[in-house]
Amino acid sequence: MSHYFFTVEPEAHEGVKRIALKAAKDFERVTGILPKISESLPICINCELSFIFVTLGKSPYLDNFITEGKYDASGIVGKREVYQIKLLDDKTILICGSDKRGTIYGIFALSEYIGVSPLHFWGDVAPCIKEKIVISKNIETISKEPSIKYRGFFINDEWPCFGNWTNNRFGGFNAEMYDHVFELLLRLKGNYLWPAMWSSSFALDGPGSLNEELADIYGVVMGSSHHEPCLRASEELDKVRGLQSIYGNDWNYYKNKTGLLKYWEDGLIRSGKYEKIITVGMRGERDSSMLGDNSSLKDNINLLKDIIINQRELIKKYVNPEIENVPQVLALYKEVEEYFYGNEQTDGLINWDELDNIICMLCEDNYGFMRTLPTEEMRRRKGGYGMYYHFDYHGGPISYEWMPSASFERTWDQMSMAYEYGIRDIWIVNAGDLKFNEIPLAYFMGLSYDFEKWGAVNSIELYTAMWLEKTFPSVNPVIQKKMAEVLHGFIRMNAMRRPEALNAEIYHPCNYLETDRMLSLANNIETLNEDVYSSLLQNEKEAYYSMIYFPARASTNLLNLHLYAGKNSHYASQGKKIANKYFDLVTECIEKDRALCEELANFKNGKWKGMELGQHIGFTKWNEDNSRYPLRIQIEPAYKPRMVVSRKDRKEIYTKTYGNPMSIKINDFLYAGNNEVILEIANDGIGSIDYSIEIESVQMFGCNWLEISSIKGTVEFQEEIVLRCNKQKLNNDEIHCIRLLIKDSETTVAVEIKARNKNINHLPPMTFLENNGVIAIESNHFFAKKDLPAGSFIELKNYGRSGCGMKVFPATINFIEKDDKPSLAYRFLIEETSDYNIEIWTTPTNPVKNKHPLRFMLTSLQGEQIITTVPIDFKAGNPSDKTWCEGVLDNIRITKTMVKFEKGVQEIFIGALEAGLILERILIYKKDILLLKSYLGPLESFYICP
Amino acid sequence: MSHYFFTVEPEAHEGVKRIALKAAKDFERVTGILPKISESLPICINCELSFIFVTLGKSPYLDNFITEGKYDASGIVGKREVYQIKLLDDKTILICGSDKRGTIYGIFALSEYIGVSPLHFWGDVAPCIKEKIVISKNIETISKEPSIKYRGFFINDEWPCFGNWTNNRFGGFNAEMYDHVFELLLRLKGNYLWPAMWSSSFALDGPGSLNEELADIYGVVMGSSHHEPCLRASEELDKVRGLQSIYGNDWNYYKNKTGLLKYWEDGLIRSGKYEKIITVGMRGERDSSMLGDNSSLKDNINLLKDIIINQRELIKKYVNPEIENVPQVLALYKEVEEYFYGNEQTDGLINWDELDNIICMLCEDNYGFMRTLPTEEMRRRKGGYGMYYHFDYHGGPISYEWMPSASFERTWDQMSMAYEYGIRDIWIVNAGDLKFNEIPLAYFMGLSYDFEKWGAVNSIELYTAMWLEKTFPSVNPVIQKKMAEVLHGFIRMNAMRRPEALNAEIYHPCNYLETDRMLSLANNIETLNEDVYSSLLQNEKEAYYSMIYFPARASTNLLNLHLYAGKNSHYASQGKKIANKYFDLVTECIEKDRALCEELANFKNGKWKGMELGQHIGFTKWNEDNSRYPLRIQIEPAYKPRMVVSRKDRKEIYTKTYGNPMSIKINDFLYAGNNEVILEIANDGIGSIDYSIEIESVQMFGCNWLEISSIKGTVEFQEEIVLRCNKQKLNNDEIHCIRLLIKDSETTVAVEIKARNKNINHLPPMTFLENNGVIAIESNHFFAKKDLPAGSFIELKNYGRSGCGMKVFPATINFIEKDDKPSLAYRFLIEETSDYNIEIWTTPTNPVKNKHPLRFMLTSLQGEQIITTVPIDFKAGNPSDKTWCEGVLDNIRITKTMVKFEKGVQEIFIGALEAGLILERILIYKKDILLLKSYLGPLESFYICP
Repeated sequence: MSHYFFTVEPEAHEGVKRIALKAAKDFERVTGILPKISESLPICINCELSFIFVTLGKSPYLDNFITEGKYDASGIVGKREVYQIKLLDDKTILICGSDKRGTIYGIFALSEYIGVSPLHFWGDVAPCIKEKIVISKNIETISKEPSIKYRGFFINDEWPCFGNWTNNRFGGFNAEMYDHVFELLLRLKGNYLWPAMWSSSFALDGPGSLNEELADIYGVVMGSSHHEPCLRASEELDKVRGLQSIYGNDWNYYKNKTGLLKYWEDGLIRSGKYEKIITVGMRGERDSSMLGDNSSLKDNINLLKDIIINQRELIKKYVNPEIENVPQVLALYKEVEEYFYGNEQTDGLINWDELDNIICMLCEDNYGFMRTLPTEEMRRRKGGYGMYYHFDYHGGPISYEWMPSASFERTWDQMSMAYEYGIRDIWIVNAGDLKFNEIPLAYFMGLSYDFEKWGAVNSIELYTAMWLEKTFPSVNPVIQKKMAEVLHGFIRMNAMRRPEALNAEIYHPCNYLETDRMLSLANNIETLNEDVYSSLLQNEKEAYYSMIYFPARASTNLLNLHLYAGKNSHYASQGKKIANKYFDLVTECIEKDRALCEELANFKNGKWKGMELGQHIGFTKWNEDNSRYPLRIQIEPAYKPRMVVSRKDRKEIYTKTYGNPMSIKINDFLYAGNNEVILEIANDGIGSIDYSIEIESVQMFGCNWLEISSIKGTVEFQEEIVLRCNKQKLNNDEIHCIRLLIKDSETTVAVEIKARNKNINHLPPMTFLENNGVIAIESNHFFAKKDLPAGSFIELKNYGRSGCGMKVFPATINFIEKDDKPSLAYRFLIEETSDYNIEIWTTPTNPVKNKHPLRFMLTSLQGEQIITTVPIDFKAGNPSDKTWCEGVLDNIRITKTMVKFEKGVQEIFIGALEAGLILERILIYKKDILLLKSYLGPLESFYICP
Repeated sequence: MSHYFFTVEPEAHEGVKRIALKAAKDFERVTGILPKISESLPICINCELSFIFVTLGKSPYLDNFITEGKYDASGIVGKREVYQIKLLDDKTILICGSDKRGTIYGIFALSEYIGVSPLHFWGDVAPCIKEKIVISKNIETISKEPSIKYRGFFINDEWPCFGNWTNNRFGGFNAEMYDHVFELLLRLKGNYLWPAMWSSSFALDGPGSLNEELADIYGVVMGSSHHEPCLRASEELDKVRGLQSIYGNDWNYYKNKTGLLKYWEDGLIRSGKYEKIITVGMRGERDSSMLGDNSSLKDNINLLKDIIINQRELIKKYVNPEIENVPQVLALYKEVEEYFYGNEQTDGLINWDELDNIICMLCEDNYGFMRTLPTEEMRRRKGGYGMYYHFDYHGGPISYEWMPSASFERTWDQMSMAYEYGIRDIWIVNAGDLKFNEIPLAYFMGLSYDFEKWGAVNSIELYTAMWLEKTFPSVNPVIQKKMAEVLHGFIRMNAMRRPEALNAEIYHPCNYLETDRMLSLANNIETLNEDVYSSLLQNEKEAYYSMIYFPARASTNLLNLHLYAGKNSHYASQGKKIANKYFDLVTECIEKDRALCEELANFKNGKWKGMELGQHIGFTKWNEDNSRYPLRIQIEPAYKPRMVVSRKDRKEIYTKTYGNPMSIKINDFLYAGNNEVILEIANDGIGSIDYSIEIESVQMFGCNWLEISSIKGTVEFQEEIVLRCNKQKLNNDEIHCIRLLIKDSETTVAVEIKARNKNINHLPPMTFLENNGVIAIESNHFFAKKDLPAGSFIELKNYGRSGCGMKVFPATINFIEKDDKPSLAYRFLIEETSDYNIEIWTTPTNPVKNKHPLRFMLTSLQGEQIITTVPIDFKAGNPSDKTWCEGVLDNIRITKTMVKFEKGVQEIFIGALEAGLILERILIYKKDILLLKSYLGPLESFYICP
């Protein structure tokens, strides 16, 4: 049996003492033995290992070590939140912080080193049990300074999940609960937190000041959401406002200046003594102007200036006369943003020196896409900038609060863009209820802590591997790889369409077999997920369940629910009895959804009870008020067996008719890359039908090129017949025709199939060919790319809805029309001279320059055209802007233009203009073609491999 | 115990002898005693009553009576199908026919006199059992000559019902079965029959010639459907055609003249000896031209002439050299009609003397509306005209074959129009399977036999009373009246939309409360029907069941099925849990539909088994191939109780929202006659809600004018709240406002109600007032009517879809633009000067003049406008004419025009132009108003009573 000693001097920060206790618990978790904590240095007669936790300037022992030459602090001195781990001898490990948080990060680094995950509580990660702790030389390190000064998260939209959970488990939003939150933040090397504020007041619920005190002890810098100035929670006012109140009744500075100043004064007196970032400024209630709708911009700016000046006077008086040392933040949000920039007539706050040492907090569009970012000039501001990002949002057009739906790739892309644009003082992410956002949050915190490492393009795979290796060290790497696939698989799936925004009409039930593709995607995730889960040992299962297994299952089940409902409706509208099977499948998914909630509530004896309560089915407005389960349609089979034939990828049905049979025309095999068509033979009546398929006629060239998966059978509900064209067996360039008859005892349906093996030998590499009238090109399938020293397109892997994105880096570079620009070139074969629609599918990013459009240059035979994907008056983040709403709901933005092409091989070029544009796909089709309705669009067309 | 003697001489027609046997069975039915039939005159010692059945020219006894002065035949001699009933003494009744059918009608008149219904077999009418037969002086009569020369019906579209029935019961379409059909025809005083011909050949199925022989014996004149010339059934050709056949293989006179002439020759040889109307001419297979699509009109006419000349040569040779004594018919149908009229370049057959003694058979549009009728000049043709009418049709746009759906009123209107236009030689009606068409058929036969009596306008009520009194003599007249309501109620209901053409999207589920109105209509019929049935004695029940009770129940259940499905879909789209109740109601209706079939199959030990097989649910094309049961939608209630408020007559829902509550605006009470609005308070979640209604604010005038049917309650599914405005309590002409709040624990919905008691004292009588933007006027609510000696509008009671029709009589009169015309005048109040839409809703009748439009004159402030309801190129009866199809499916034709009206009381005048137009309704609404979607349109607006 081993023993471990921790040394923490009496002079140490109280926070360090407390964190040492947590580290001791971590040792106990791993070894079963609680280390002995002592104020003295170890003597080390009986002990195996001893650890000394010290902070520069707070440790006489450390001073001695330095004096004695046992330790050289030069690697960390003067640095922010840095720690050094050093072996003083084989058995003695010194963990020294440059400051309190440095030491704390160092202690938790030790915990990680012995195998305790930062997510041991929130992610239910059990460490590997060890006989004894072995410390080797490789533990020695000097940590880096964090990339971002204030890094943290916001517990938000906390009802019903987090709220019920903490009420059940801790009796409220109190310090007992926050202890876990603070610990999470610190283990993730964060330092900044916005507390829950829907129904709670951090400063009052500790109970009393316990929350604030505990945060301060731990070195957690508390902030408050963007509309809570001067350290007072939003909820507090209702407790004290009133016509007789000293604070007055109105949340309106114009009407109630004295009351509000008093209110803020008391907030600063109460909470100013703790380490905080103080919010300044204010917003009218419900986005209203305090001066009324007809007030001028100038008046509003002046009012805000008055507010800020007075707030800062109070801060000087009650917090710190050296106000430049008090971290302060002003949120640039909605109308405040307008006051910041001003307009042509009116100067905004942008150059107001009162803001010089205030951090300006920006916000993306609530859906994860950057909005206006600091220009080069603005970046010179002393106060710096912050970014408020969202993994969770409660608002329009449709909230997303349930399961994670922000892909790591996008978080990387958009937050690294923020970084490049100089936003490095605060990164805070709305992490909703925390539960299920553990891994995305860990990633966000990692990126903000070590941007040098994780800021590299396409590094998600590496990050994930690292994280899985640390979290599941005992798991076989092959299984870890599968875990990665499940994790990103379900999150990217949710990112294609956020769960709450799903309904039965999103993915098309038949066109382009879209629903089948999505069902198969979900099924692959499910299969992998079960594979992984069943291969894990019991102690590994809980963590996987808590962070991946459960949310992946819940997410795929929800998607299946809507997909089945879409199929149910599709088959019902076709009159097919099989609709009823999909009715039952929807019912099963609804039941499974409920069973999953129940299961989560009971997991680990109810540890997370409450976290299962989030509504997530079919929101019809921004919140859950009118949420709807999909309708399920029951079909009454016809009174006798009746054959119905259809293409699986079309809605039209072919049935008995008087006279010549109805005829399905299949031209798909005329197109390169198209070798399979699936027919559905269904029975829309009682009993079953016996069908047979015969070749009625063949034109010219025989029929050995056509495979039919089945030529007779009995169908109670529906059977699929696969028609496969073997193009090798076709005479080159000749059109071959076969007419089939599908018969049952009453009905005959004809199928007319045309096929051709087009000669493509003469086509240059990367030439795309038309498929049923459409050329679809994924953005990474250019045939040429022009890179410039100033910038070039780089492929973002696994990006966006389409799975790849092309974006110009550095992300700060803009081009104007006349510039030499980086560009992408695409090549395709035009079969007929005509006007063609070109659809450019881009990620729904926003212009990052205030009042600018987002455009690119399209070059074709017809010369150069500037294409605007987002106009200048676009209102990113505003639910009244339909285009913006469509973009963030659909996760794609489609810009259409028309170009005339001559018959033959043609090329187009996409040239960069404004920064931030990300190209996902290109569609080209003739002017008069109406594309089939779908969410994801046609599959990529065939192209000539290089 | 009484005894009865029948005397039928050896010299009597064989048909008379056989009918005497049937009359004897009738006596037995009534008294239990079979009369003694003797060839000698009665001696009358023991007998109570004796009956002598004789025919002029076929009775030595009669000759004696005349000689002896006991009987004077002058009342009937030389007449057609006439009989006289005369008491020779108290006990001896002479029934004397002017010819064979005259005697037979006389004998069946006796049967009716003793209480045996013509429908005793087909309608299961049991006579009242009598101790003894009493004959009084009132039996004496000289019958009239029939109005129409050949009167009869066509058994058609006989599969699956009639065919299965006769196969089960009689083993085929043989003489045993036809005996019942002939008897029905003769009892109804008909003389003409087209036999079933889908799969049977009348001349072959007797077996052998038994069918033809029996018909001839009974004096039933056989015809054949319009495309079966020279006494050969359509089915026959397939049995004998072939490349080696003497008849050749082609049904094409151009290609196979010799073969076809031989084929017809053999038909005439075989069947020409019986009393027949021989069809001449022919049509190509499947409506094709025998000369090909590019042949000229002239060539086709010449070919047809050649056919007819040669056919008539054969008739002369094999039937009767005096061909003018052989009844012949030429059907003017589709392309043959074109050949008949010719065009400007080409003379048609119209004046071809070869047709002089051929009856030209016309056809309505298959849906009961006359097409081209003979002009005055054409009426002079010696050969005369026939009309082929439909109670049943198998064809486009949608077949109707199941339950009767042709109202008596329309049969009267359209057939009396045929009569007035000189169609008096043949009336034949397609009676489908016969079953359930018994009463409509009896009426049709009655009208054709005694047009003088039943041709009177609005005489349906009288006819029905007469018929019920004769059929149910023992039933209380109050009950008889209810029977009449059920009978016409369900048929008129079916006539609004034929059963097969119903689906869940016909009647609107909420707009104008249309579905509720139809549910209530069906419910009234059902209640009356059950009332009647339960009040009947056992021996009365069967007849009522067979002819009214069953078809009414089946029809109302079918309507309910679709109405409930519409409500199910409506409530599902509103997200309301009550949708599931309607799901269940649809299921119940489907089950009831099946149970009813089963019940009919078992009725009277399976007497009608087979007649239940007609498909009738949701045809999507002309036949049943793709027929569909309505879809049923299941809704999953939300996870908690949630209040949803809506107007019962609108689709919009009002639910919980963030900020100000959603608000229902009710302006209905601003309009005269509008005093009630129904709200639905529903729960779309699990459990139930507790709602309360409070008045939030009242403007100016208090709130005692508003009654709210309930101000609180608990709702599990849905509850209706009736808002009633008591206009008496409003200050005249002032606008009153009340704002209500409907609340449950989570949701508040506001209701803003405006009301006004408009001062209407100054308005002249019959002024219509706007209701929610629309003025709707029923056609019989004119304020003035201009009648002329030449013609005038007359109201048709219970007519059409709207329940009243205004039509000019005599039906043969046309007016031109400059004529003084009969007209109708309508008056209404225009609230605002503007352009107004005027919709004229007419019955979907067709122009009765070849190549003419159907128009009327609209006179308004803006002067006279000629409005065309049907253009000149309209193709009545042709399923490719969309307008015609819509008309016969919807049973209404809507013609729209626009007129500018000044504010104030306005008038419009509808003046007659072409004959045949029937006005049902008028709608007037402002140019920019979009009427709510509905089938029946808005209810009639309020008007000033005279």
